[in-house]
Amino acid sequence: MKIHTVLVAGRMHKELQEMINQKKLTQTFRFMEEQDVTIEDLNWADALLSFGPTDCFENHSFKWVHSLGAGVDRFLESRKWKKNVMLTRTVCSFGQRISEYCLSYMLAELQHHAQFQHQQQQKQWKVVEPKQLSTQTVMIYGTGEIGRRLAAILKSFGVRVIGVSKSGNEKPSFDQVVSISKERDLLKEAGWIISTMPLTNETKSYFDQKWMNLVENAYFINVGRGATVDKDALIGAIEQKRIRKAYIDVFEHEPLKKESSWWKHSHIVITPHISAVTVPKEAVECFVETLQKVEQGEWPSNLVNIERGY
Amino acid sequence: MKIHTVLVAGRMHKELQEMINQKKLTQTFRFMEEQDVTIEDLNWADALLSFGPTDCFENHSFKWVHSLGAGVDRFLESRKWKKNVMLTRTVCSFGQRISEYCLSYMLAELQHHAQFQHQQQQKQWKVVEPKQLSTQTVMIYGTGEIGRRLAAILKSFGVRVIGVSKSGNEKPSFDQVVSISKERDLLKEAGWIISTMPLTNETKSYFDQKWMNLVENAYFINVGRGATVDKDALIGAIEQKRIRKAYIDVFEHEPLKKESSWWKHSHIVITPHISAVTVPKEAVECFVETLQKVEQGEWPSNLVNIERGY
Repeated sequence: MKIHTVLVAGRMHKELQEMINQKKLTQTFRFMEEQDVTIEDLNWADALLSFGPTDCFENHSFKWVHSLGAGVDRFLESRKWKKNVMLTRTVCSFGQRISEYCLSYMLAELQHHAQFQHQQQQKQWKVVEPKQLSTQTVMIYGTGEIGRRLAAILKSFGVRVIGVSKSGNEKPSFDQVVSISKERDLLKEAGWIISTMPLTNETKSYFDQKWMNLVENAYFINVGRGATVDKDALIGAIEQKRIRKAYIDVFEHEPLKKESSWWKHSHIVITPHISAVTVPKEAVECFVETLQKVEQGEWPSNLVNIERGY
Repeated sequence: MKIHTVLVAGRMHKELQEMINQKKLTQTFRFMEEQDVTIEDLNWADALLSFGPTDCFENHSFKWVHSLGAGVDRFLESRKWKKNVMLTRTVCSFGQRISEYCLSYMLAELQHHAQFQHQQQQKQWKVVEPKQLSTQTVMIYGTGEIGRRLAAILKSFGVRVIGVSKSGNEKPSFDQVVSISKERDLLKEAGWIISTMPLTNETKSYFDQKWMNLVENAYFINVGRGATVDKDALIGAIEQKRIRKAYIDVFEHEPLKKESSWWKHSHIVITPHISAVTVPKEAVECFVETLQKVEQGEWPSNLVNIERGY
């Protein structure tokens, strides 16, 4: 398919403009803030490059939409996606970035950073043996590009890695993969539960009260989507010591509101959706690569399966 | 060489006794605290297993001494080692343990743990992009078993790794290895400097004022030996912002005294010599393996070169 005109919308448009111009592509581009997009722009462009749908998105006549983030739920939620419109997403180094994020908090815990910091304040010399990663079992929800990268890195440290996916198909680097909702018997074996899951109809509030009741003394990391977690159930599970600590990088509504009680919760670590930031340079590389495949009629590996939702 | 009698001395002797008994070895053992060792014990034993020299160590008639720690400086300092006595040391999983220790503090820094913790306390949502390991350059002093393991792990994350060793011989996983004192021109390129060096005549106070003056804005981790660092020079380098932060796990005198000003230093992180703890189970495995090699006349890989001092 031939792409002649591309609309680039959203907070990163200026940096993207500079880098895309350097690429000397044959397409014509328009760069602007999301709120400045008009119906004329929507009609003009063959393709859209943005983090989410623009105003009046229903009226677009794009052939191709490329998401600047890995998650495409904002594009797909409460909207019938036009069948003939191709949807792709940015993946780049997200797997590596998310892995380093998760590993950083796992190691900080296993190496007792907080305890040694406390002991230092007390001028107390007390040997506490760090735990090696190889003694841990981690359950990863999502065995796509991100989950697989995380599994490979953890595996290289001798971690036992259980994957949970829609299909339950075996994947490299996982000791075992089970299909979603079949993982429940294994939950009690997990010392760490990490969700990289996208937000779909099936994953919305997946981590609910019933699920929490099966967890036994595990750390929970959410780098997937905020709305996959039932917030009250999570707080309850922390109070019951089913969840030792929760590391939350993604929230249903971002930025997290000042009023949220989570900010002050001693067993919740909050980070401002930084585990997989989209860097302009990588975003452009991913876009250009995908553009070439789209034009040459190849199957981009980052193509979204609309029914599946990721 | 045949070993008939083994003296096991020091704080771990009870746990070691239990495990060694299970091995049903043919040797006769005596297990005791270091201060309970008599000259009779020293004369009785063919071999010693301990963390350091016992009282009256000069009078021993051991054929073989096996150190329960990786460092053997306590055995060798201010003493002429008897040429015909074999000295070996425990290595086991120290490389892996030290690597996880170093990686934990590197990642905590690169992932801005302290900053996000502060922001959470302020209920502040502010995106700060974590830095990927692949953007970092690390200089590792010591390219032995521990330094090599650390290099291999860092390399797997795309870190640029420079090694510093006595010989400067190339080693796998290092981008480059330079001989000690030839590394000084490269110091300014290092964002992280990690010492795994043993304590020898050459390494004592190696990290002195002159050395510190060549460092530019680096993090310093010492998991080698405390006495390799000139303490005042380190404090000066922190004040001059040559060293951004120091992570110190080893001290000239341990435990670190309550009076030390280091406890309260905001840019020094103190841990109580836990980056490579000797675990009884692994210590016994290493001892038994070494014992077999000693008896069969093989060359143990953990044999100490007395002149070199490690």
